[in-house]
Order: sequence, then C-alpha cells, then structure tokens
Amino acid sequence: MPIDAVIPFRPVNPKTRLSDIMDQQEREAFARIMLGDVICALRGAGCSPCILCTTAYHHPGARTCIDEQGLNEALNDYLAGCGIGPVLIFMSDLPLATAEGIRRVTATDRDIAIVPGRGGGTNVIFIRDPSRFRVDFYGASFCDHLAIAKAADLSVDVVDSFFMSTDIDEREDLVEILLHAKGESRGFLQGIGVGLSLETGRVSVQRSPHE
Amino acid sequence: MPIDAVIPFRPVNPKTRLSDIMDQQEREAFARIMLGDVICALRGAGCSPCILCTTAYHHPGARTCIDEQGLNEALNDYLAGCGIGPVLIFMSDLPLATAEGIRRVTATDRDIAIVPGRGGGTNVIFIRDPSRFRVDFYGASFCDHLAIAKAADLSVDVVDSFFMSTDIDEREDLVEILLHAKGESRGFLQGIGVGLSLETGRVSVQRSPHE
Repeated sequence: MPIDAVIPFRPVNPKTRLSDIMDQQEREAFARIMLGDVICALRGAGCSPCILCTTAYHHPGARTCIDEQGLNEALNDYLAGCGIGPVLIFMSDLPLATAEGIRRVTATDRDIAIVPGRGGGTNVIFIRDPSRFRVDFYGASFCDHLAIAKAADLSVDVVDSFFMSTDIDEREDLVEILLHAKGESRGFLQGIGVGLSLETGRVSVQRSPHE
Repeated sequence: MPIDAVIPFRPVNPKTRLSDIMDQQEREAFARIMLGDVICALRGAGCSPCILCTTAYHHPGARTCIDEQGLNEALNDYLAGCGIGPVLIFMSDLPLATAEGIRRVTATDRDIAIVPGRGGGTNVIFIRDPSRFRVDFYGASFCDHLAIAKAADLSVDVVDSFFMSTDIDEREDLVEILLHAKGESRGFLQGIGVGLSLETGRVSVQRSPHE
C-alpha cells in the first residue's frame, strides 16, 4: 500500500524572493518543475503523491485536492479527513530530495518523523496516525511540531538530510540545485542561463545577460 | 580496527566571522568545545580521532599531529604518510555531527564518500585508499574533489546529511546548534547568554546583554 504523500503547492506568483533573478512567469514555471521533481522522488520511494492546492492544478504524476484555506487549516483538514494510515507531508520546493532519502523518513519506527529545514523550519513530516497530530507551519515549526508530538505522547524521529533540508527560497539556494540536483530543476535553471559563478572565491549563481 | 579520523584544527583566533557575538577568548573556547563534540561523535562511530594542528594542542580524546603547513599541504602529507587503510577527514566545526551519521559515511561501499557543506564545500571526506587521492579544500572543493576522484578512477558516494553539512561559521549557524546539537556546544552558547529569538518571525540568535 503506497504511503499518502501530500504536497502543498501555490502555482500563482510563487517564490517571490527569487524575483531578482526570475520574472513571475519563470518563477511559476520553476515552481512547477520543482514540484515535478518532488513527485518523481516520492513515487520512486513508493509514495502516492497528492497536490494540495488552492486552485485547480493538474500534474500527470499526482492526484489533486483543492482547498482554499490557508496552509495549516488545509493540511489539518486533510489529516482529519484522510482516514487511517500514515501521511507524509512534503514541501514542493525540495528538488534535491531523493527516493533514498524519502525512504529513510518513511522507514522510521517512530510515530512522527521530521526533516528539519534550516532555521527551525519543517520541510517534511511523516505522521503515522493522522488522527493524533495536527501541523503548525510558519515560524519555528520544528519546535512547535516537537511540542505537539510531546503533548500527544508521540515518539519523534529527526531525520538527518541535507537534500531535504534545502528548501529553495533565495538566490543562494540555487547553488545547491546546480551542484546536487538530479531532476529537471537543474536543467531548467541552465536553460534560462542561470549557472555557477566562482568569481568571488565563494560559489554563487549568476544569470547570463544574453538569455 | 578503528578508522583513522583526522581533524584539522586552528586553536588561535578561530571563527572570526562570529566576532560580532563572541570575543576572541570566547571563540577559542567555543572552537575547543565544538572540537570536543566532534571527537565524541567520531569515537561513538568507532573512529580513532587525530587532531591535525599547527601548534601543540592536547585533547584527552584524541591524538595530535603537528604540521605547520597550510591545510591542503598538511592533509596531503598526512594522507601520504599514514600507510594503508582508510582515512576520514572531518572538519572541527561540525558540532551537530552524530555517530549515526558518521557511520553512514564510513559504511560506504565506494572508494570515496563526501559530505558536502552548503555552497560547494566539503565538510567530511572518507578516503578508502589514501595513496590514490589528494585533497583540495577552499573554493568549490566539492566539485574539485569529484574531479580528483574521477581522474583517479575512484567511485564516489555523496552522503546526505544536514547535521554534517552544517559547519558553524556565522551567527545564523548558531541557530542550528541551539535547535539540534546534543553535545557540549549548545550548553556553552547558553552559558554565555546566547539563545534563540523569535522576534522577527524567523528564528535567529541573540545574546543577553547581562552575561
């Protein structure tokens, strides 16, 4: 039985912190490409992906659920309505994710498994019994999720993954895609002229002015 | 037979990018505490730690080798002189490292295993046959190490670890210690009044003015 993997997704004007390097149309295309890489990795790990979206959105590799509420309300309603069996919540901006890494999450023997993002975020969370947990994203969600699990007497595994800790929000995050990603996101960046730069002694990205 | 783990270490005026939050004496103490956490994790993973230092430095959990050369020259001379058997090169500023994570590195079936840092760095590298490899740190060392391995026809494993990808250089990196570290580094920070702040909506660190 494949594990239900729900991916919140915002198709319109996403990733505004990348506005200095991509226009809105490119950011929307890039968000779709990253989502596709995430879906591919999840399917490779034996999960059944479901896109949770505020508007109708179709991807051939996943089901879609429409919910117009905010992130936490939509996810908590999803958890309340999805019946028995584990749920994996997976952010759509994790294009470095690998099937191998995802299997380390779903193979946990605990009630909850969290992959923290940098700065106290939660990038991935596995919930064995969705009736016993609710999510609280934004802010220091890693700490909040530990507290919610503790209050519900649920055991927690913290899964150590650089690739899943790397959510793509800012220009410098693109470096990691160009260095490590195996999916389509890397080719998308290269296709619009975004490449690595070593000029400053540190690795950064630059966009070719001709493309 | 424990695996030889070499830890380059600079005891004098380290971590200058933390100068806005710690004075030199505190940075030197903090670097020693982080080194101690790294040594503890390495011993927990069955490794035999050796501190590679430009000056005499003693830690009860490790041997010391003195080499006054630069990082690459000292490490490459170490590799040339250490005989047969694998070597693990491990940076001293990885206090989030766990024995479990280190075992994922040393258990590789490849010739080389690399744990990348953010931004193209190399934080940990496992070298099965030190006579066939040389290191080249600084700049985009992750890419350089892949190229050196390819030129020597050595297979490479990239080990996916957030905790070992997190080298502590800047103020914002301290957030990860306060959130995730299990060793002494966290207590050291708390002892000098460095704690988490949620004031800006993002997780950051602040230092109490009274301590």
